[in-house]
Amino acid sequence: MPEIAPKAPLSDRIAQGRGQVPADLVLKGGRVFDLITGDLVQTDVAICGDTIVGVFGTYDGQREIDVSGRILVPGFIDTHLHIESSLLTPFEFDRCVTPRGVTTAICDPHEIANVCGAPGLEYFLEASLHCLMDIRVQLSSCVPSTHMETAGARLEAADLLRFRDHPRGIGLAEFMNFPGVLMQDEGAMAKLEAWQGRHIDGHAPLLRGKDLNGYISAGIRTEHEATTAEEGLEKLRKGMRVLIREGSVSKDMEALAPLLTERHAPYLCLCTDDRNPLDIAEHGHLDYMIRRLIALGCPPLAVYRAASLSAAEAFGLKDRGLIAPGKRADIVVIETLEDCRASLVLAGGVLAEAAAFAARGTLAPVARQSVKARKVAPEDFRTGGNRVGTPVIGILPGKIITEHLSFDIVPEDGDKRPDLARDLVKIAVLERHGVNGNLATGFVKGFGLKRGAIASTVCHDHHNIAVVGADYADMALAANRLGEIEGGFMVVAEGEVLAELPLPVAGLMSLEPFEAVRDALIDLRAAARGLGVELEEPFLQLAFLCLPVIPHLKITDRGIVDVDRFEVMT
Amino acid sequence: MPEIAPKAPLSDRIAQGRGQVPADLVLKGGRVFDLITGDLVQTDVAICGDTIVGVFGTYDGQREIDVSGRILVPGFIDTHLHIESSLLTPFEFDRCVTPRGVTTAICDPHEIANVCGAPGLEYFLEASLHCLMDIRVQLSSCVPSTHMETAGARLEAADLLRFRDHPRGIGLAEFMNFPGVLMQDEGAMAKLEAWQGRHIDGHAPLLRGKDLNGYISAGIRTEHEATTAEEGLEKLRKGMRVLIREGSVSKDMEALAPLLTERHAPYLCLCTDDRNPLDIAEHGHLDYMIRRLIALGCPPLAVYRAASLSAAEAFGLKDRGLIAPGKRADIVVIETLEDCRASLVLAGGVLAEAAAFAARGTLAPVARQSVKARKVAPEDFRTGGNRVGTPVIGILPGKIITEHLSFDIVPEDGDKRPDLARDLVKIAVLERHGVNGNLATGFVKGFGLKRGAIASTVCHDHHNIAVVGADYADMALAANRLGEIEGGFMVVAEGEVLAELPLPVAGLMSLEPFEAVRDALIDLRAAARGLGVELEEPFLQLAFLCLPVIPHLKITDRGIVDVDRFEVMT
Repeated sequence: MPEIAPKAPLSDRIAQGRGQVPADLVLKGGRVFDLITGDLVQTDVAICGDTIVGVFGTYDGQREIDVSGRILVPGFIDTHLHIESSLLTPFEFDRCVTPRGVTTAICDPHEIANVCGAPGLEYFLEASLHCLMDIRVQLSSCVPSTHMETAGARLEAADLLRFRDHPRGIGLAEFMNFPGVLMQDEGAMAKLEAWQGRHIDGHAPLLRGKDLNGYISAGIRTEHEATTAEEGLEKLRKGMRVLIREGSVSKDMEALAPLLTERHAPYLCLCTDDRNPLDIAEHGHLDYMIRRLIALGCPPLAVYRAASLSAAEAFGLKDRGLIAPGKRADIVVIETLEDCRASLVLAGGVLAEAAAFAARGTLAPVARQSVKARKVAPEDFRTGGNRVGTPVIGILPGKIITEHLSFDIVPEDGDKRPDLARDLVKIAVLERHGVNGNLATGFVKGFGLKRGAIASTVCHDHHNIAVVGADYADMALAANRLGEIEGGFMVVAEGEVLAELPLPVAGLMSLEPFEAVRDALIDLRAAARGLGVELEEPFLQLAFLCLPVIPHLKITDRGIVDVDRFEVMT
Repeated sequence: MPEIAPKAPLSDRIAQGRGQVPADLVLKGGRVFDLITGDLVQTDVAICGDTIVGVFGTYDGQREIDVSGRILVPGFIDTHLHIESSLLTPFEFDRCVTPRGVTTAICDPHEIANVCGAPGLEYFLEASLHCLMDIRVQLSSCVPSTHMETAGARLEAADLLRFRDHPRGIGLAEFMNFPGVLMQDEGAMAKLEAWQGRHIDGHAPLLRGKDLNGYISAGIRTEHEATTAEEGLEKLRKGMRVLIREGSVSKDMEALAPLLTERHAPYLCLCTDDRNPLDIAEHGHLDYMIRRLIALGCPPLAVYRAASLSAAEAFGLKDRGLIAPGKRADIVVIETLEDCRASLVLAGGVLAEAAAFAARGTLAPVARQSVKARKVAPEDFRTGGNRVGTPVIGILPGKIITEHLSFDIVPEDGDKRPDLARDLVKIAVLERHGVNGNLATGFVKGFGLKRGAIASTVCHDHHNIAVVGADYADMALAANRLGEIEGGFMVVAEGEVLAELPLPVAGLMSLEPFEAVRDALIDLRAAARGLGVELEEPFLQLAFLCLPVIPHLKITDRGIVDVDRFEVMT
């Protein structure tokens, strides 16, 4: 990973660190939580531009901020996330999340890359130059995620090579196609070869034993998909950095908390993967994870190390993770370690406040008008098939793993229809990138939908249009309306739109402030609940029903996918 | 630091890790000391070429080695050393030290660079390609170490730039000129600027408080000069990786051992700095440090982490430090953790045995005929000066710090002479690179020399000829004889050479096997003892009396140096 030099001039850093001249900024009178010793130490913190230059001493500053009575910790590092899943542009994500203390975010923009290819990577690489938070961009390794879906773009090794040494980059992103690694698929091998000796992020849910050994031997360094402590421990012992994840759907924190001991903490990190603004508003981001992990009994030193120092080490970010001379001035001021609520955040020496966000450079969004689906009619959602035995996707609430269920569904008039009494609802995926107009249909159990339909253009990772419905006319309305609003979330019933959230950037991200997005999600959730949907996060749950790299049964525009056999069911 | 990809083909690694085909090599039935959990785990270790591909499982191998009943630990990493100080070429150093379990050595060839410049760096960079041990070469940052000595070469930032991205490199070497950093000396600043965002190694003995903050803020990341636990702790808390050093002269291990707790272990490393073959034969290398640290009460997990995993992390060597898939096959087989005596060592998958060393490629040495000193006569060692008050270098046995003493020495016939009753012996440094023929004289207390003279071309860092003597004629004989043997160590008395060790490579390294060098050192030590010298390591002690970056009083070819005032005394 190319390291980035401090911006603050070398000469100023030396002189201000020595106390020869006043520092640009001094945080006075607080207590630093020293992550090396675990002590709380009363001290000033002197900052020169974007760099800390003095600790464990008394300093004068051109500007001084009194933080007496409060605690200073290093900025938090989200080690794996998809910013698109926040439904916000990186600029709004920055404005929403940095004030919670997250000063570094290592993102994989494979969502937007699946819609529009390399321009999506470039958008994030360039946006990262303007944000207060330090956004580092991994290069999406699996676009599309498998051969069993139609994405809007394809990124092979050759397409990624020109970004390989980009200073904002940080290696190859989560290598989700673990079957491709084990089976030595040509395209997978080409990417792995090109990144040998460099950072390769991992993703291998439930992979264990010798197959796991083979996967790691390919040079893969991290894992965020461990869902049990036992699985996490095996991966830790085999040299992977394990990223404890708490997203809006994937909530692994409570299961993995027993791993976060002082002994293991140097090798553990935190991440959110996919977290939306409603969750962030109601609970928090990494600050929430820190709060909960301490409440679950993890030692504060272990938790704060995982949140910053261990994460910096894991990703070769030698310039951060500690409040110490020479490090980026990423500092979070909190009242208590247990509560972890930021009253002040410095990101690269810049105070994260409204004026600073307003002063950022901007960037025109890419991938507008990205919904190119054909118009559909109600009868397009008919499901044929002679055998009554029908595969059904079984939702596990709060998980992205699904069950491979089977029910007898007798066709009526050649069509297998929704059976609301058994909660067997119709699901469909409509290709929307203008490639082939595929439409696949199937069944899902666990939504509890009694009427209408919900639809989304956030549908991992191919981000085609996913529709779940009790009624074909409502399903068609929802799908077609998504085309009109450049993509988003939709709730319809009896021919009317009940709630919608446009996501005009690639059909994934809003152009609105995060507060408006949060409010729209509340409306959508209420509207879905009105249709009988019992799930906490229906749109997130829906989004992952289409992801064929997570077991066991999924659906893409090509059909129902048996993930264990890694094939589309005929 | 550019990372180096595994040599073993990706395809083979995956297949062998999965157990689809027999592994190239399997170590069967041993117990791996798992540095993540601290457990001893019974398991096979499967190796493909230079890379570990399987652990925590049972494997078949094309070749199998039975290690049942024994313990496997990751290869040890010496994080800071000058191979020249072993008096051996890198090839002999490899043969001597690798069988003790040291599989990585991060060296700074500033000794040879001071004699012959960039060709010295190139010699080490190329030699590293052939050795079993993985020798990584830092770029010497302070050649010469100060402005107060005459070296054989000068390396400015411009001279180093072409090596900056060398794959065998690992950043800028110990930045000893810490006064130059603090005073923002032009040459120092140029080097620091060119290495911003890259690894810069540190060296700042006794530097504390705000000056230390300023030094670290310049981007300096490590320290091996801490001599007390308190100093080491300050540096640790300020984000430096502290390298616990146990050399042949500088023995800081016992003082720093209290720091090596499990809590601090991720941020501590081990190093030898300067260690000769006699010490290695009598005690050991990093294996000795491990043994002693455990005996001193440090937890074995902390010690072995510092010896391998933490060191790999500190230097961005993501491919080693753990016995785990994807890591270099650097493995040490020992009987017990406490005793740490290697019965088998794998370095990059190659068994460290006689046949492997014999099979290495070779390299012709550089810097032969490097002693170009003028011939000297006895009267050249006269010391003038009207004031009777005379600065005297006070030796502290086992330390490279000296005392700044002062004694009244009344000139006889215009010459201040050795006063053996008070153990005030004459010391002189003669420039030997063919630059200016300087000769400086002074006094030193602590050798206990009663007759004759000892002399050396190992004289840090300028490596001029250093002579200590009770008699001027013997001093002249010793200095001139060194020119005849292309440099080395010398003991003379009453006009006869009592013992000598030629070091014809740059006047620093022998071309003989390490066993012969060890035997010669025994003879030299005995011969020096016969002259009354009480010190354990007289030649090492002498070598550091010339180093003006370690306080408090030293001597170079330019004169007596007051290190605290950082100037040559007039």
